[in-house]
Amino acid sequence: MGELTILPLTRVPEVVPGDNLGRLLVEAAAAEGIRFRPRDLLVVTQKVVSKAEGRLVELARVTPSPFSRQLAARLAKDPRLVEVILQESRRIVKMAREILITETPHGLVCANSGVDASNVPPGYVSLLPRDPDRSALQLREEVCRRTGVRVGVVITDTFGRPWRVGLTEVAIGVAGLRPLVDHRGEKDHFGKLLRVTVVAVADHLAAAAGLVMEKAARIPAAVVRGYRASPGRGKGRQLIRPPEEDLFR
Amino acid sequence: MGELTILPLTRVPEVVPGDNLGRLLVEAAAAEGIRFRPRDLLVVTQKVVSKAEGRLVELARVTPSPFSRQLAARLAKDPRLVEVILQESRRIVKMAREILITETPHGLVCANSGVDASNVPPGYVSLLPRDPDRSALQLREEVCRRTGVRVGVVITDTFGRPWRVGLTEVAIGVAGLRPLVDHRGEKDHFGKLLRVTVVAVADHLAAAAGLVMEKAARIPAAVVRGYRASPGRGKGRQLIRPPEEDLFR
Repeated sequence: MGELTILPLTRVPEVVPGDNLGRLLVEAAAAEGIRFRPRDLLVVTQKVVSKAEGRLVELARVTPSPFSRQLAARLAKDPRLVEVILQESRRIVKMAREILITETPHGLVCANSGVDASNVPPGYVSLLPRDPDRSALQLREEVCRRTGVRVGVVITDTFGRPWRVGLTEVAIGVAGLRPLVDHRGEKDHFGKLLRVTVVAVADHLAAAAGLVMEKAARIPAAVVRGYRASPGRGKGRQLIRPPEEDLFR
Repeated sequence: MGELTILPLTRVPEVVPGDNLGRLLVEAAAAEGIRFRPRDLLVVTQKVVSKAEGRLVELARVTPSPFSRQLAARLAKDPRLVEVILQESRRIVKMAREILITETPHGLVCANSGVDASNVPPGYVSLLPRDPDRSALQLREEVCRRTGVRVGVVITDTFGRPWRVGLTEVAIGVAGLRPLVDHRGEKDHFGKLLRVTVVAVADHLAAAAGLVMEKAARIPAAVVRGYRASPGRGKGRQLIRPPEEDLFR
């Protein structure tokens, strides 16, 4: 494993519904002097994907249910926002104070089902992409069409974690690489089998890109170069622990 | 934010108790042609820190308590290993099948209190450093003594997470940088306050370095270059959520 480079894409314009995000990212890379190479990994925040896909809801058009109103009062949130969150949830995992942690239809466990008001037009909130793995695959194909290079793609979102302070970027959509690397069967220098078995490399990639992607500075994507990801038809959803194996459901 | 580089340290020898790890890392960097620069961040896996600090226990010298024997039978583990884990725990968070999740005296929540048999001599297990923040500070000072450069230091361990598959590197010790960056008060492009408030950059750094650090290939450290960490007297323990704020205790 050699040196690894993370290149921020700083010239992505404001993304609006209907935009061809793959084109915008390719152009932003070109403006930066970045030419995609085979094995490059393109890491993109969920927000611009959701905006390009039109996954925006105008709160003025939302009618909250009685349950949403009740929850909203308890959580000190806008009842219309709570209504949208519940529509994007298949389960409430935890609620306390102003925090609502839910499970999305994808199976992701996160605050507010990923519904979020930052970096979208006033009065709107954004939803997670309906199928982040499909979004990642579409970006991969669009980049390939325009550059001839088949990059791997990771779509990220910013999640909190139990027990630890602070948010981190995690992978919610993946295309063109395996999100998990399995070290089972490998041995250490004493000939013992390794304890560390399955590593969530897509989450490592998301976090690494998170060091250069900045919300306030509008850097919604980065290229990770030099990482030899295992190519393959991996999916972000492989990172979601099946309920029957989850000790913290 | 410009380009960021992650440089693996591939020439660290097998570390044994009493070794001056700072010296070994400086020599490994030099052998690699890496000269430390101001603002470089040195990321080091816990295992070599623990070995240098002599945090090894020979299982043959451990006498398991009746409770450890009972737990060991249930978990299909070596009773002596369970005894060591319990001695390193202040609370059992969860147990099921072969999994024992505990809270360490530091407040970290992880499998087996970080007690681990890989990459240590046969018959031994390693414990987490007693005070990973102090270990990080000592490394920072030793690197400074030898190179004149005050690098930031992050000590990592490999943890699992609820709800997600696969392990990731997280920061357990920090010196010379703030592990959390607080974006509260910053505004997005529409003038709205950002939702994302406190980002766990030390965990991002740990994960980024995790892309090049390899257990089987004996790469226990990496240099992250180009990241403008907030300097300061940050501590890894700031990443541990206080019990009263933890919804998942």
